[in-house]
Amino acid sequence: MQLKDLGEFELIAKIRENFPHPPDDLLGIGDDCAVIPQKDKSLLVTTDLLCEDIHFKRNEITPGDLGHRILAINLSDIAAMGGTPQYAFLSMALPPDLEVSWAEKFLEGFKSLCLSHSVYLLGGDTSGADKISLHATLLGEATQIKTRSTAKQGDRICVTGNLGDSGGGLYCLKKCLERCQAPFKALIEQHFRPTPQIKEGKWLSEQDGVHAMMDVSDGIASDLRRIAEASCCGFEVELEKLPLSNEFTRLCKAEHLDAADFAATSGEDYCLLVTVDPNAYDKLNGQFQSTFSRPLSAIGRIVHFDQGFNFLKNKKPVELKSKGYQHWQ
Amino acid sequence: MQLKDLGEFELIAKIRENFPHPPDDLLGIGDDCAVIPQKDKSLLVTTDLLCEDIHFKRNEITPGDLGHRILAINLSDIAAMGGTPQYAFLSMALPPDLEVSWAEKFLEGFKSLCLSHSVYLLGGDTSGADKISLHATLLGEATQIKTRSTAKQGDRICVTGNLGDSGGGLYCLKKCLERCQAPFKALIEQHFRPTPQIKEGKWLSEQDGVHAMMDVSDGIASDLRRIAEASCCGFEVELEKLPLSNEFTRLCKAEHLDAADFAATSGEDYCLLVTVDPNAYDKLNGQFQSTFSRPLSAIGRIVHFDQGFNFLKNKKPVELKSKGYQHWQ
Repeated sequence: MQLKDLGEFELIAKIRENFPHPPDDLLGIGDDCAVIPQKDKSLLVTTDLLCEDIHFKRNEITPGDLGHRILAINLSDIAAMGGTPQYAFLSMALPPDLEVSWAEKFLEGFKSLCLSHSVYLLGGDTSGADKISLHATLLGEATQIKTRSTAKQGDRICVTGNLGDSGGGLYCLKKCLERCQAPFKALIEQHFRPTPQIKEGKWLSEQDGVHAMMDVSDGIASDLRRIAEASCCGFEVELEKLPLSNEFTRLCKAEHLDAADFAATSGEDYCLLVTVDPNAYDKLNGQFQSTFSRPLSAIGRIVHFDQGFNFLKNKKPVELKSKGYQHWQ
Repeated sequence: MQLKDLGEFELIAKIRENFPHPPDDLLGIGDDCAVIPQKDKSLLVTTDLLCEDIHFKRNEITPGDLGHRILAINLSDIAAMGGTPQYAFLSMALPPDLEVSWAEKFLEGFKSLCLSHSVYLLGGDTSGADKISLHATLLGEATQIKTRSTAKQGDRICVTGNLGDSGGGLYCLKKCLERCQAPFKALIEQHFRPTPQIKEGKWLSEQDGVHAMMDVSDGIASDLRRIAEASCCGFEVELEKLPLSNEFTRLCKAEHLDAADFAATSGEDYCLLVTVDPNAYDKLNGQFQSTFSRPLSAIGRIVHFDQGFNFLKNKKPVELKSKGYQHWQ
């Protein structure tokens, strides 16, 4: 059997089963970050890989955007735990004939986002390679942590930003739609330069009404499943309630795409997905709105495990057309 | 200009210059591990990359050996700081048509070494790729740390094991010398399954007489230069004193290789390189020998910066034929 027959999630499941489980006070494989308790806080660790021709094409993304992107993805994982990012490690496998100016611009993009978040680069590794492969590890700390496994039946499911923009940008790139024309430019920019929601994550982690939290990296259809499975619950999402940007809606109209379906299954939005005590939602939404000038959009609710995973259109369950992305398949 | 014109060390130097320096109590780029001080100990972080056709050939190394190797390299960095390894993160970019059994054996090799050192795998990332690219991050802790920058003029330069075996093994592979015949088998095994010297590192870090420490990853010619530069010193090595295994000596005779030159410049031995107070050396060597059943071999001494970097044969300076390895060049 080959990896493409097994699939990414199955391989990860095998690893989780076969490796010794860490002590109970540690959080290992299966959340946005590993959590290692320390005296009065927790150490967070996350790690991400970006491979040429899998995660990006060299002729589509500028090196500066790529430098921003690899750190942003890691920052988003720290945000998803309510943490503060601190120290980065960057490993680069680069072809020998790559222009030094490419590497310099890549590092400039990485450094610029480091500076915005007071993150120090403390190490890494370098190697030759045929294709570019990049790896970043980010350490952070947190005092109050929200995980994926603490959603409760009845919780409102909420997101902290629009869904689908990054996927819309990727769609534009794949279809070679005019990059510089609105509305596409904003979507492509959202795809290349996601904004990690560190402040939002920290604020949400401090609210008792917030139960579970993760970042939207694979699309809510995939990501909500992870929260539901980790919390032994089901969910229902009202597709009409997904927050969509004007640009994304215009793209979907122009291209005859089902916007809600696309927004639920396309990934890399890097906003936060939280489940909230239903009695706390209204107050929390008001406070979130006054702090961050946008709503904490409620899109559905956590239900009993037996009710499964449901997407509703006009209150009726529908099957999503697109499937989430999985490596090797 | 391309990366092959700039070279790996220059790129790393650029990064060190251009990124903000971390606070003084942190140790960032430039040692075996990053060191982040905590309340009563220090957190160590190291990270390593292994790329197919750069660091290994898929048809030469078994997946189990490769799994051992990537963790062993990281463990050796923790050993070089006198630390105890604790938590690993493993990222794998793997081709979709790779056999699942390959991945399973690779993970088995990794897990087996995790178990020997009580290391928990806490996370990582997976991706598709054309070629295998592996990345491991290892966290550890230490109370007493020896760095590269604390060598003192007059120090004896010592190593904790034989030099050249791993390089000899790689030579055998490159020359397609009969793998299964002694003496080659032992050398190839040393290349594929290095033994990280965690216990030796911890013991040495506790000795006041030990001043500087690092692991031998690129060959002592390269590695000693790093200690000397970080400590603003020079060095002289007596090539006759390099500890060589019988197998390595036999290989060099058979292949008409200059054994000392080869041992000084071939890398990946993953023993430890230390500088020791000359007045403490005899006692320390005796204690090391009785603890680890082999000598702490003295091979030279740290000298004044102005005397430069010297390799002596019959007390006369010689130029080494081979140069250390540098990516992209």
